[in-house]
Amino acid sequence: MRLSKTFVKTLREAPKDETAKNAQLLIRAGYIHKEMAGVYSYLPLGLRVIENIKKVVREELNRIGAEELQLTVLQNPKPWELSGRWTANEMDIWFKTELSSGGELGLGPTHEEPVTNLLKEYIKSYRDLPVLVYQIQTKFRNELRAKSGILRTREFLMKDMYSFTTDEEEHKKIYRAVEEAYGRIYDRLGIGEDTFETFASGGIFSKYSHEFQTVLPVGEDEIYFNKDKSIVLNKEVLEPEVLEEFGIDENELEKTNGAEVGNIFTLKYKYSEPLGLKFQDKEGKQETVFMGCYGIGVSRVLGVVVEKYADENGLVFPEEVAPYKYHFVAVGERGLAKASEIYERNREKDEILLDDRDVRFGEKMKDSELLGIPYRVLISDRLLEQGNVEVTNRRSGKIETISIDKFVASL
Amino acid sequence: MRLSKTFVKTLREAPKDETAKNAQLLIRAGYIHKEMAGVYSYLPLGLRVIENIKKVVREELNRIGAEELQLTVLQNPKPWELSGRWTANEMDIWFKTELSSGGELGLGPTHEEPVTNLLKEYIKSYRDLPVLVYQIQTKFRNELRAKSGILRTREFLMKDMYSFTTDEEEHKKIYRAVEEAYGRIYDRLGIGEDTFETFASGGIFSKYSHEFQTVLPVGEDEIYFNKDKSIVLNKEVLEPEVLEEFGIDENELEKTNGAEVGNIFTLKYKYSEPLGLKFQDKEGKQETVFMGCYGIGVSRVLGVVVEKYADENGLVFPEEVAPYKYHFVAVGERGLAKASEIYERNREKDEILLDDRDVRFGEKMKDSELLGIPYRVLISDRLLEQGNVEVTNRRSGKIETISIDKFVASL
Repeated sequence: MRLSKTFVKTLREAPKDETAKNAQLLIRAGYIHKEMAGVYSYLPLGLRVIENIKKVVREELNRIGAEELQLTVLQNPKPWELSGRWTANEMDIWFKTELSSGGELGLGPTHEEPVTNLLKEYIKSYRDLPVLVYQIQTKFRNELRAKSGILRTREFLMKDMYSFTTDEEEHKKIYRAVEEAYGRIYDRLGIGEDTFETFASGGIFSKYSHEFQTVLPVGEDEIYFNKDKSIVLNKEVLEPEVLEEFGIDENELEKTNGAEVGNIFTLKYKYSEPLGLKFQDKEGKQETVFMGCYGIGVSRVLGVVVEKYADENGLVFPEEVAPYKYHFVAVGERGLAKASEIYERNREKDEILLDDRDVRFGEKMKDSELLGIPYRVLISDRLLEQGNVEVTNRRSGKIETISIDKFVASL
Repeated sequence: MRLSKTFVKTLREAPKDETAKNAQLLIRAGYIHKEMAGVYSYLPLGLRVIENIKKVVREELNRIGAEELQLTVLQNPKPWELSGRWTANEMDIWFKTELSSGGELGLGPTHEEPVTNLLKEYIKSYRDLPVLVYQIQTKFRNELRAKSGILRTREFLMKDMYSFTTDEEEHKKIYRAVEEAYGRIYDRLGIGEDTFETFASGGIFSKYSHEFQTVLPVGEDEIYFNKDKSIVLNKEVLEPEVLEEFGIDENELEKTNGAEVGNIFTLKYKYSEPLGLKFQDKEGKQETVFMGCYGIGVSRVLGVVVEKYADENGLVFPEEVAPYKYHFVAVGERGLAKASEIYERNREKDEILLDDRDVRFGEKMKDSELLGIPYRVLISDRLLEQGNVEVTNRRSGKIETISIDKFVASL
C-alpha cells in the first residue's frame, strides 16, 4: 500500500464518546470507523488485520480436519423454538426483525440451532460421524450497553465451530484436538503466553465449560489463578464445592482480569435432543448425536492484541497479525525513488506499506509509530549515501543500520 | 477434499418448495442448504465457489486501484434520514430492528449513505480525491416474494463499490475503468460472452445507468437488443424518446431475458449533497463531491453460472469458479492407492477432490456429473495396468486416455 494513494489518514482524535483504548487507537490509526455505539466498520488496514486473524484460525482448524461452511444471519424461528431459545426470556440479546410477507426472523447471535437442523440432512448413521464444521461470520447481539471498544460489540466477527459425535468418548478426542488448535492459534496471534484455559460455568448440561481468557486489565471477566496447580477459574464457578473438587484453598488464588477470546462447551444432547438429530448405531438402534461447540471472537482478538501490545505512541502488532510487515519511510528524492523501486519489485508479496506522502519527516515518523507495523525501514538520501537503511523494531524500539543490499536480499 | 471425510452428501431430491433449477442442483450437489425461502447457507463446496468469485472480483478491482473495506450490517438511521431513504415509503425492502437500549436500526440493503458519511472524515480537499472503495458483504432485502433460487434472495452477497471525484470528468475516467474491470470479471467467471452492458433507468439524477445483463431464459429482466448498433436496452427505458435518441426503430429490437449481474450508476450529488460531503477545491472554494456506485451480485453470479452451464446430469463449472479443478474417481485397490498418493502429493495446491468412498462405481460417476468439476480423472486398476488414467471434460464430455506420468506432470 502506498500511503499517498489510500483515502485513509491518521486522525488527531477519536470520537469523544469512544473511551476504550483499543477503539481509540484503531480509529486514530485509520484501521476502523465507528458507525455507532458497538458497531464498527473496518477500513483497509483493519480489514487486512482481520483477514490475517481469520487465516490463522482457518489454517489451524483445517489442520484438525474441520470443514468450513457459512450459515446465514437471518434466522428461522422454528429450530430456536424447539430448543427453547427463541423468546427474550430465554435469550435476551436477540435482534428480531419482520418479513414483509409476514413472520418474525432473528439475526443469528450464535448458530447451534441452525447447524443442528442442517446436519439432520446429512447425519443418518454412525458412519457419518464424527462431523466438525465451523464458520467465520458476523454475529449480532443486542447488548444493552456497548463499551470496551471492539471487545464487546453489537455486530462482531466470530468463529464458531460445532462437533457431532456418536458418544462422549469420541467427543473428548475432538475436544482435546480443539484445545491444542486453540493453543496454536493464540500463540500465532501473539497472545499465547497471556491466554489461559479457564474453568467456567457449563450451563445446565455440563459441569464446566472452558474459556480461553487473556489476562488484560480492561478484561470484563474476573479470573482466579492457582499457580501451583496451574488451575484458572472464572469467578462464576468460584464456589466452595468447586474449590473442594480441585483441592484449592481460596487464599491460594490470585485474582486478575481476563478477556474471553474463546470458549469450548460440551453440549451433550442440549440441541440434538430437542431438534431430533439422531443416528443409527452399529446395532441399528437410533441414538441421539453428542455435540460440542467451540468459539473464538475474531474481532475481539484484534481488540485484545491492541490492548496488550499498544504503547503510548500507538499500536504495536505481532508479525502474523500486522497488516504489513514493513513500513517504509521514504525521505528525500533519492530515498523516495529507492523506496518505490523496492516496493514495486516486491509487490507480489504485498508485505510493504510505503509512506511516499509529501509530508514532514516528523509526521511520517509519528504515523509509523501510530500504525504499529513491526519493522519501520527508513530509506533516506543520507542513509543511502552510505548504502544503508535503518530498520526499527516497533515493539522493542531496537534500531539497526544495515546495508540496503542485505535488507533487499532479506525480503 | 476427500469425499470420504466430508459430511456433505449428494441428495436425491431438493426440497419440494424449491422450484429454481440453480438452487435445486446446488442443494442436490451439496453446495448450499436452504434455511428458508430466500435464505441459503453455503456448504464447503459452495463456499469455495463463492470464495473463487470473490477472488476474481477483488483482483480486478484492486488492479484499477480500488481499496477494500468492510462496512456494517447494522445501520444507523441518521444518514438515511438525510438522504430520504429511511422510511418504507422511500425504500420498501428494509429489514428493521430495535436496539434494546432504544431506537430503530436497519439491516444494510446497500451502503451509499454510510460510505458517504464515513468519507466525510477523510475527504477534505481536492488532494484527497479521487477515492474508490469497495466491499464484499452480506446484504439484506425484505423481498415480498423470494423465488428464482439464489438469483433473488433476502440475504445475499454483494460487491458494492463507490467512487468519489472532484467532478464529472474525473468520474467518467473511473466509470470507464470499472466498465473494463467488469468485462474482465465476467470473462473470467465464464459469463463474459453472454453478458451485455445495458442501458437502464438512471433514477432521478442521471438519464441512464448501466446494467450488466446475462442473457438467461429465467432472468427476471426483459432486455432488448439492437445487434447492428450493439445497443442493449432494459425494458424500463423502452420509450419513444429513448429509441429516437439512439436512432433505433422498435422493430429492429430483439427481446430476450436477462439476469442483472452488475450495475453502475452515476450518482452525481444524490448522496453527497444531503449528507454534506464536500471538498475544498484548488481555489479554496467548498464544492460537493461527485459520486458513482458500482455493484456486482456475487451470489447471484453463482446462480447465473449454474443456470448457464448446467446440463441434464448436473452442475458444470468453468475452471476459475469451480471448487476444485479435478475430480478423482478412484476404482479398485490399486486405483485408490494411486489416487491417494497423487492427492497427498498435491495437497498444497488444493485442486483435487478425491472420491475415495466405498460406494458403487456408478454412484461415483453419477456424483461426479452432479458436482460439475471441470475434469474427472478416472484412476482404476484396469487403467493403471496400461499406465494410464482417463480424463473427462465435464463440459464437452470429451474423454482422453493419457499416461499417468504425463497427467501427474501436468498438475
